Parts: sequence; structure tokens; C-alpha cells
Amino acid sequence: MVKRNINIARLPSAYLFPEIGKRKKMHLEKNPNAKIISLGIGNTTEPITPHIASALKNAAQGLGTVDGYTGYGEEQGMPELRKKISSQVYNGKISPEEVFISDGAKCDIARLQVMFGSNAKIAVQDPSYPVYVDGSIIMGQGGDAVKGQFGNIVYMQCTPENNFFPDLGKIPKTDLIYFCSPNNPTGAVATKEQLTSLVGFARKNASIIIFDAAYSEFISERGLPKTIYEIDGAKEVAIEINSFSKSAGFTGVRLGWSVVPNELKYADGYPVRSDWNRIVTTLFNGASNIAQHGGIAALDDKGLKEIKSLVSYYMENASMIRSALESLGIEAYGGINAPYIWARMTGKNSWDTFERILDKCNVVTTPGSGFGPAGEGFIRFSAFGHHADVREACDRMKRNL
Amino acid sequence: MVKRNINIARLPSAYLFPEIGKRKKMHLEKNPNAKIISLGIGNTTEPITPHIASALKNAAQGLGTVDGYTGYGEEQGMPELRKKISSQVYNGKISPEEVFISDGAKCDIARLQVMFGSNAKIAVQDPSYPVYVDGSIIMGQGGDAVKGQFGNIVYMQCTPENNFFPDLGKIPKTDLIYFCSPNNPTGAVATKEQLTSLVGFARKNASIIIFDAAYSEFISERGLPKTIYEIDGAKEVAIEINSFSKSAGFTGVRLGWSVVPNELKYADGYPVRSDWNRIVTTLFNGASNIAQHGGIAALDDKGLKEIKSLVSYYMENASMIRSALESLGIEAYGGINAPYIWARMTGKNSWDTFERILDKCNVVTTPGSGFGPAGEGFIRFSAFGHHADVREACDRMKRNL
Repeated sequence: MVKRNINIARLPSAYLFPEIGKRKKMHLEKNPNAKIISLGIGNTTEPITPHIASALKNAAQGLGTVDGYTGYGEEQGMPELRKKISSQVYNGKISPEEVFISDGAKCDIARLQVMFGSNAKIAVQDPSYPVYVDGSIIMGQGGDAVKGQFGNIVYMQCTPENNFFPDLGKIPKTDLIYFCSPNNPTGAVATKEQLTSLVGFARKNASIIIFDAAYSEFISERGLPKTIYEIDGAKEVAIEINSFSKSAGFTGVRLGWSVVPNELKYADGYPVRSDWNRIVTTLFNGASNIAQHGGIAALDDKGLKEIKSLVSYYMENASMIRSALESLGIEAYGGINAPYIWARMTGKNSWDTFERILDKCNVVTTPGSGFGPAGEGFIRFSAFGHHADVREACDRMKRNL
Repeated sequence: MVKRNINIARLPSAYLFPEIGKRKKMHLEKNPNAKIISLGIGNTTEPITPHIASALKNAAQGLGTVDGYTGYGEEQGMPELRKKISSQVYNGKISPEEVFISDGAKCDIARLQVMFGSNAKIAVQDPSYPVYVDGSIIMGQGGDAVKGQFGNIVYMQCTPENNFFPDLGKIPKTDLIYFCSPNNPTGAVATKEQLTSLVGFARKNASIIIFDAAYSEFISERGLPKTIYEIDGAKEVAIEINSFSKSAGFTGVRLGWSVVPNELKYADGYPVRSDWNRIVTTLFNGASNIAQHGGIAALDDKGLKEIKSLVSYYMENASMIRSALESLGIEAYGGINAPYIWARMTGKNSWDTFERILDKCNVVTTPGSGFGPAGEGFIRFSAFGHHADVREACDRMKRNL
């Protein structure tokens, strides 16, 4: 019989978000009349804005016509979309050929892990988006686990105590450094100085940064970098991942992109971009053409305005949640340049607190420990939701916690 | 500096279809007025049929409304679509929970390769769809290459001489057996007897068959199995991959599915389905919700009728191409239950013949050697194209070859 892949057997038994879904379901079975409000998984709730929705509709409709029909496109994405990302997101500092369109950040992270292969040594922020660690374990980069930490993975603690930025002087050299800013789950945003030191650190160690900028549109304060390429020298050491999921409400539509700069090289001088091109063309067949037309509309002037208003809508939620937590005397971070609030909660542990909030308030959250050992004791609140629901959730928490 | 993943370095320099695209471009640069017709890559050309296109449009439009908006769905796919595939494609013999919706067969093959990991030993039909081999090499399952063959891969020759079915008595035991029927590129369809012997072979060796049924809708002759699960005992040894790409014209829309039966177990008794569920939830975020609504429509009575008519349209092309080749005295296979015609062509080698047809007829084809060593000397003609174009291509070939 076929042997099970030992690396998958090493994984924690369930991916975080399905586990939350399961517990929510169980709660509903016990309390069939509970009106649950989810501040758990970062799932968008507001309709796609008119200009962008209309582009999606037109593209779908067009597929039923001789002139509008398209089959396979280039696996790397529609040239017009790559060009628009180059000019609108990167002011031309990144060329269209360095932009690769994906069906979302998560899927591209998995493909990057495949590309770097089982010998890559990685560092992650702790806490961090679980796919960095889980995907790396699946690819055999994790090694053995001891108490929830994998031997071959460097965990860079990011806590209130270090202002959510790791003490790089104490971090050993790795091949890859996953770094997410604005951060999921802590909501922290790295400053230009911090990212400059991160790029310097990567250059010194000849590491590659995988910079996850999926929440860059949520940055409201001036001067905070929206892309790693605002830092001099980043093109030689950084890949950037981004997504239309949260900013344009495309969580279900599926569209994102990755940037692999021409300047990024392996030890032998071979361009990483060439391997990425090979991976994308061999293991992927492009994002849905309908979604790509939506992405093109999202990046014209009307679309960008709509994105801003959608982001503002969710950020009002973030501010409501922060206020509610602060009024309860709970230590809360994030929620200003990111749609996540990271709260230190008393209780036995994160899952215990998760259950307590679910029981007392019928509010689903995400236990901090799901994002890594340093997340223990914290709860992540997501700002994605209808205003009325988030207001109601905040009221319940103020009453019952 | 980061070292390049040795497994990617082992790959042939370019994935087949982008290489064809490059040569086509070069030909156009030399012959700017050439009216090229492509019978190369199997890319659908006809508009999506009215009922299915309307479902896509409605879904896209709905995303702009409060009631119609959806964000992340279940990574495994919409319950309604999984149910429809269970009932319409498998007559309920496969349960909805065994069906996993994907963004296409190619992407799911890659995820399967990740799931089985670098130690899996594989067998492929020779010739075969390049992703089986290329993806396996990337995952480290290939070993070293000698003259285009990888040491750890078993190549099962499928040629006119053995009626395109391997002599299983001579095939060594492997963990995985990739098998595609109707076959890309040869157009051959395995009979019930042949698939029964394949399933028996897999059961005896405790191997897992990865059965690619992406062209099953093109089977017109009665009695030929459209799914591996028509064979008794297949559920214990086979995963099936399928796609809406060719049958519904979704090559650009991106939608497919995989079946991992509950009965399929690893050596230690652990269900493969549980690992697949973990892979899909961890490394994938679901197919586009718009595409999934299209898939649901494609599987109701109106949709199924439309698919049949679309398939018939392309199969008329197949018959034109077969006739043209036969009138030239060229040995041709397939094109009856599959949209591909596999032709033995004289010439130095397949790429040479590819260039000759491009030069003399301005017709793009696919060189057989791109599908594996046993494809050398053959050319694959794809039946996807507008009738007028295919007719014109056939006329040119009859005149100029």
C-alpha cells in the first residue's frame, strides 16, 4: 500500500479556520436559536462595489458571445492587468513582467513553497498567518515538532513587548523570511525604518523575504510603507504577495498577484523569476478570466475610489471593536492600519477564551494560539462584517464579558 | 544566497505549451502576414452556451448586491455543486463529500503531487499530458534524467502497436499510476475490460490510480467507461480528476473537480480523503464563486444539453481533421471519442514536423515528443477551433503537405 506522506502526518490535525467553523457548528447545535455574529475568519461581507461588479458582469456576459469569448489566457495573467498593477500599485517601479496574477495569496504562497523545495530553511513572525508554517511543513521544511514548534522553523516573536517587530540581532540566518505587514493577526504595520532594517538583514544573510502585503490598502497613516519595494535594495531580496480579496471584496472571486523582481537571484546567479515562471506555467492555469476583468476595473480611477470607500467601511468596524475592548479595559492592538484587532485576554488559554466569548456573546473570534505559540493569550477580532452586526457584537461583549 | 531547488533545475527548460507559443510568435515575426490557425494547444474557441453563460452573468451581477454577495466559501466547493456532480456525473455512486471542487485539473494534479510527497514512485502513460511528469519532477519524484527519461519514473508505452494500452505484465509496481482516458494526446479510450485489468493491477500492487477523465464528455461510443468508478473495486484504488474546461468551454473560467473516495486508504489505514481535505483547505481557497455557479448550471438538464451540443461542434472538427489526414495517407488515431487526433508523420522528428506544418500551412500543432519519448514521430492535432478555421487548416494541409 501507498505510504502516507510523513510531512502531512506532522501537521496539526486541522487547519485553523475549518476548526473554528466546526466549533461554531457545534455551538449552534447546542444553541439552535443563537444569533451568531462572526468576527472570526477575515471574510468580507459587503457587496462588490458598482463599477467593479459591473466589470465582472460584463466579462461573464461577454463569454457567451463570439467577440467576448476567451479560453486559456497566459498563465501569468492578462497583460492589461499586469500593466495596471505595475503602474497603479508600484508607480512603474515594478515592471509588468515581474507581476504574476494568481487566484489568491494563499494559493501563491503554496506554489512558492513548492518552488523553494524541501531544503529551504524558513523564518516566520510568531504569531503569523498559519499557511506560512503549515504549507512549509507539508513541503518538508518543518522537521519534527516539539510542543507546537517545528525544529527547522525559526519563530520570530512579535509581541507588544517588542512593538511587534523582531529583534533581528537574535534571529539566525534562514533562506526565507515570511513577513506580513500590515500584519495578520496583530494588525501591526512595520515602519519604513523597520522594513529598512529587515531588508538590510536579508541582504546581509542573503535571505529572501516573502513579503505579504495583502492588507496594504488598509494603511491609513501617512509614511507607512505599502510595499516592500519602497525600501532601497528590496528588489534583490524580496518577493511580494498581494490580493484583491480584502480590499475589493474578492474573497470568493479569487484574485491576487505576486511580484518576483528580475534582480532576485539564487546563489548560482540564476534568476528566481525564471523558476517562478516555470512553476506558474506548469502547475497553474491562470486566474479566472472573469475575475481578472474585475481586477482591471478595480485598478482604474473609479475602481480605486470604490476600494477606498469599502476599506473605510470595514475600518469603521475596526474602530468600534477597539473602542469596545478598550471600554472593557482589554489591552488591544491593531485596527488602525489593518482590519484586525489583537487583544490580550485573560483566561486559561486562547481556545478557552474563544469558547467563553462564543458562549457568553454568541460571537465567533479567532484564538491567538492558532497563529503560533506567541499568540497564546490573545484573541484576534476581524473587522469584516455588516456595521449593524459588528455594533451588536460590541454591545454584547460590553454587556457580557 | 539561497540555493535553487535542484528538482526544478532537473526540468526540461520550458513547459510544452509556452514553447509552442514562442515558436508561433517567431514564425509570425518572420511572416507578419501569415494567417495562423492553431490546432495546437487544446484551447476552446466557442462562446459559452446561453444557459450556462447566463448563470455566470447572474452570479457576477449578484455579487454586487447584498443578497447575492458571498465571500469565502468552503474550500472544498459549494455543497450544491458537489451534490450535482455526485448525482449527475456519478449517479450517486460517489457521495458529495467525496467530490472536491477545483480551479481546474492541472492545479489539482499539482496539489495531489504535493500531497503524496517526494517519496512517491510514479508510473505514467507514454505519451501523456506533460503535467504528470513535470509536476512529479518538481516534487522530487523524478530522480535523474537520462535522454529525456527520469530514472524514478516508470513510462508505460502506449502506441498503435499495443492498441494504446500498456502491457501491465511488464510494468513494475509503483505508488501512483497516472492514467488518462479519453487520452490526451492519443485520443484512445480504454475499454471496460482494459480498465478492469488496470484496477486489478492497482489492487494487486496496492497502487493508487490517478485517473484523468477530463475528456469523458467526448465519449460518443456506447459501452466505453466515462469514469473509473464504473469498474468494480475502483473506489479502493482510484482518485478521479475531471474538469469543465473542455466540455463547457471553461478553459478561461477555471473549474474542475477531484474525487477522493472514502474507501481509499494508505498502508496504515488512514483515509487519503482526510489528507486531501487538509491539502485543499490549507493550500487552496476554493474555485471562484462565479465559476461554481456556472458549473451548477452546466449540470442541470438545460446545461447538460448545451454541453452535448458544444461537444458535437468540436467533434465535427475532429472528423474533418481525421478525414484530411487519411486523404493524405497519414496514419491517424483518436478523434472519435476524444478531441485529439494522433498522427504518425514522417520527418526527422516531431519538432521538425511541427515546423514543417507551420511553415507550409501556417498551422500550429503539437509535436508528439512533447508528451514523452514514445510520442516521437507523432503530431497531435486538437479539434478545438471554429469550423471555418479548421476547414481552412485541413484544406491547406491537403494542398501543401
